[in-house]
Amino acid sequence: MMDGNPTHASASNTEPITTDEIFSAHEGGKLSVETRLPLDSKRALSIAYTPGVAQVSRAIAAEPELAASHTWASRLVVVVSDGTAVLGLGDIGPAASLPVMEGKSALFRTFGGLNSIPLVLDTTNVDEIIETLVRLRPSYGAVNLEDISAPRCFELEQRLIEALDCPVMHDDQHGTAIVVLAALRNAARVTGRELAGLRVVISGAGAAGVACANILLEAGIPDVVVLDSKGVVGSARTDLTSVKADLAARTNPRGVAGGAAEALQDADVFIGVSSGTVAEDILAGMAPEAVIFALSNPDPEVHPETARRYAAVVATGRSDFPNQINNVLAFPGVFRGALDSGARRITAAMKVAAATAIADLVGEDLTAEYIVPSPLDPRVAPAVAAAVAAAATA
Amino acid sequence: MMDGNPTHASASNTEPITTDEIFSAHEGGKLSVETRLPLDSKRALSIAYTPGVAQVSRAIAAEPELAASHTWASRLVVVVSDGTAVLGLGDIGPAASLPVMEGKSALFRTFGGLNSIPLVLDTTNVDEIIETLVRLRPSYGAVNLEDISAPRCFELEQRLIEALDCPVMHDDQHGTAIVVLAALRNAARVTGRELAGLRVVISGAGAAGVACANILLEAGIPDVVVLDSKGVVGSARTDLTSVKADLAARTNPRGVAGGAAEALQDADVFIGVSSGTVAEDILAGMAPEAVIFALSNPDPEVHPETARRYAAVVATGRSDFPNQINNVLAFPGVFRGALDSGARRITAAMKVAAATAIADLVGEDLTAEYIVPSPLDPRVAPAVAAAVAAAATA
Repeated sequence: MMDGNPTHASASNTEPITTDEIFSAHEGGKLSVETRLPLDSKRALSIAYTPGVAQVSRAIAAEPELAASHTWASRLVVVVSDGTAVLGLGDIGPAASLPVMEGKSALFRTFGGLNSIPLVLDTTNVDEIIETLVRLRPSYGAVNLEDISAPRCFELEQRLIEALDCPVMHDDQHGTAIVVLAALRNAARVTGRELAGLRVVISGAGAAGVACANILLEAGIPDVVVLDSKGVVGSARTDLTSVKADLAARTNPRGVAGGAAEALQDADVFIGVSSGTVAEDILAGMAPEAVIFALSNPDPEVHPETARRYAAVVATGRSDFPNQINNVLAFPGVFRGALDSGARRITAAMKVAAATAIADLVGEDLTAEYIVPSPLDPRVAPAVAAAVAAAATA
Repeated sequence: MMDGNPTHASASNTEPITTDEIFSAHEGGKLSVETRLPLDSKRALSIAYTPGVAQVSRAIAAEPELAASHTWASRLVVVVSDGTAVLGLGDIGPAASLPVMEGKSALFRTFGGLNSIPLVLDTTNVDEIIETLVRLRPSYGAVNLEDISAPRCFELEQRLIEALDCPVMHDDQHGTAIVVLAALRNAARVTGRELAGLRVVISGAGAAGVACANILLEAGIPDVVVLDSKGVVGSARTDLTSVKADLAARTNPRGVAGGAAEALQDADVFIGVSSGTVAEDILAGMAPEAVIFALSNPDPEVHPETARRYAAVVATGRSDFPNQINNVLAFPGVFRGALDSGARRITAAMKVAAATAIADLVGEDLTAEYIVPSPLDPRVAPAVAAAVAAAATA
């Protein structure tokens, strides 16, 4: 009633986006909570509030499963962050992370048709984050963890999955991994190769790198080598965290030792999810018809025009180059499918199914410059949701 | 995109509300989260999400007060309950309380123009509730406690006010008290009496009873007598909780002993906020031109038609009789005014100002059957908000 809406952002155009335009679009925040039915009469008040609402509360008390159908909670996605790894900005804290989380909730609404709210936490203690979400459990239906630093994010996600009887996914891990697999599936197709035969190097062993390695293994690609800042993550290393040691045991089947140069020699695929760079002479050592995904944002590990000299297919995380690997292709449909199917967990099979659905939408339009759909393609989320729901109940 | 809205509830009419109609209106919940700007172009995505959002996050990290203006949190009211005292239904738990909390959030939107979400907690431990809200502090701007049982509600509210630097109000206490004071102010005016000279009896020493006693004392009515199930809450009693002992020390200036009959003898005002009843012969002992507020829901302590035989002014909590004492007259404007003024606390002076604003809106239309505005009167929340904001900065 009293809060007006902000004026509509200036119409879509090609002028550079100004700082003023960005700050003005954020004034008052990007979300609003609305009523699904107007409360504009005594009758409406008596239905939605007292005395009518008492019948619904009494019914849920007697039959708890009615809460799923007669409140919003079972389909509400909470976007949870402690602000420790926000975009490329690092540990800027929960308040400063809020604009990102609001944006994420806005994407859940726009692409997934789901209600979503940000919950940012003034604690970085894993036990306390879990305890808080357990206490709030009746308030929501799924948890999207966001921008939580590694290696805490691995333990947090794993323990939350155990603690909660609802879908939980750390999007920085699995959202990225799903879209990478989708893109890689089509990159293999456009270059006439089989996924299973690819030699893949992942640069970065943080949230996204670990999840990419896992989904590629799950999808049947055995030859995956992961690099961290010290070189190849291999079994001979004595400086590995438990997460990396686990990765070392399951990757690098040819026992490559050394750094990027050794790993990328004759490799088919480079996936950059670090915030580093990769030298041109190293890329020159890759196999013919190589695939380069340089996903660091805003600065890719290698400029896409440079990468094109050494690769048949190039993708980045940016919207101003072809083949944008953007998580928004995955998370709205993944959560939507999980909630539609009543799944309690988001399994590896559901993630692979999401990737396949994204890749399949490209269909006969496939070219080296069109391996994934546009983030604005309205077919994506429903297709992903359907594939995820089918995999959940398979 | 994929979730449709439920069909509009049947148009306002006078047919009895059916159970089907109530349950159908609650399907999928009563709230939705929407985006304030459409995310329908690459440009819009680049402003509201990456890369544009990074500028806003970076700015908040450097200048934390920008979170108030550039996220939704500072004006978001969380409606918090543990489900221990839901309407008249008692301790039905957090999930069953959700329809009520969603309704409350819907009222915050409709009448206060505020964003609001329900947070229901799977713990009834006061320490744990406080700890949870402290951890979530960057996520919201104000706390409306709701349907939390006495006497825990008193300790919880008091300690939360100390722990949080934002407005906190237990509406079952203060929302009711504010509207009771507003109604009493006009009941005194229509019967030609001064507030300060009234003899008031409050039946019920729970959340609402204690808060009513406090606001009447604050408003300058010294002669307040409170009854609980054992009789007058007086200093001679040895069975009082600390909250009631405190009340005994500040009320009952004439030292009345006994029960309802003794307390109501020659009393000017009866305020029922118990779930009990009061006998006709006891009401017959009240002073001439008495005022009876029988606020128990859905069954008033005395039927309003019966009450009219002994009183010049009668009010209830029901919408189907004149003079409905409904919290919705207070809480949307109280929170709106507190947030508009940047107040960190909702003080006694702000509550009294809210009551005066509600009473003043009746103006020259005052009759014994019109002592408070309708809950649907659109003038109420803005008037309350303005009065509360003025009192906050006074």
